[in-house]
Amino acid sequence: MEAIIINPIGIIHTPHQLGSDAPIQPVYSEKAGGEVEVFDCYREGLSDISEFERIWLIFWCHLAKPYRLKVIPYRDTVERGVFACRAPSRPNSIGLSVVKLLDVDYNRGILTVEGVDMLDNTPLIDIKPYVPKFDSFQSSVSGWLERSSSQTTKSDNRFCK
Amino acid sequence: MEAIIINPIGIIHTPHQLGSDAPIQPVYSEKAGGEVEVFDCYREGLSDISEFERIWLIFWCHLAKPYRLKVIPYRDTVERGVFACRAPSRPNSIGLSVVKLLDVDYNRGILTVEGVDMLDNTPLIDIKPYVPKFDSFQSSVSGWLERSSSQTTKSDNRFCK
Repeated sequence: MEAIIINPIGIIHTPHQLGSDAPIQPVYSEKAGGEVEVFDCYREGLSDISEFERIWLIFWCHLAKPYRLKVIPYRDTVERGVFACRAPSRPNSIGLSVVKLLDVDYNRGILTVEGVDMLDNTPLIDIKPYVPKFDSFQSSVSGWLERSSSQTTKSDNRFCK
Repeated sequence: MEAIIINPIGIIHTPHQLGSDAPIQPVYSEKAGGEVEVFDCYREGLSDISEFERIWLIFWCHLAKPYRLKVIPYRDTVERGVFACRAPSRPNSIGLSVVKLLDVDYNRGILTVEGVDMLDNTPLIDIKPYVPKFDSFQSSVSGWLERSSSQTTKSDNRFCK
């Protein structure tokens, strides 16, 4: 199957400089603030986005180590399949995070957001609106994560170059 | 910023042959069944996934038309910014759908799933576990979609080659 070429549409600016000390998910970010910069040629595509309370950021984990198919995730002590984890080191290092949208500067192409877990200067691949009817399944069973005794909220260096 | 190379990790087999008659989201798929085939070299990464009730499929909308920055989405009659829509024709044509996981055949690398909205033979980019604590925001405000009077559940040809 042919390779796919992705051209980043922007950059995500966050307070997280080190892979060894970043939140492992937005929910553990203590509402960390960030700015999503959308490149000039894509800015018109932001129209109407300010009406959404949350957005999906799809991004490239540019500092992730090469993947292994089984990893010890942050919230466990034994190996799990990488597709049963949200670890950044994966065959395609795509990150998926939902953040709260606080403000949109349409002229500058800047989205001010809350709840960033990605590292500073992360390449942005796509933005989608968060729609509860499509995306929210409150009681969906979440496997090993439900049994995990770990309360880790910050990353260490295991997945970072 | 440098381009990113993505190598598909599998193929999604679905009953939807035509872009003109596919569900516009999993929630409107009438529980359509599909099979997610993960290529042999990635199968070990599926370990532990059967414990999750739902999974995210991240895929490449291989039959999407070239993008425009403003589009008339399926559930509206006026143009909206493409990043405020879930339309498949976007600067990077990445699709994001949550499906119910019914069965896992680890030997063959086949996930049997329910609620597929993508077209048959869609290239698979990533699988992530659905985790309500990370992904579920039941009351998040969803902009123009909340005011839309359209009850469309199927696609037409507007975004398809």
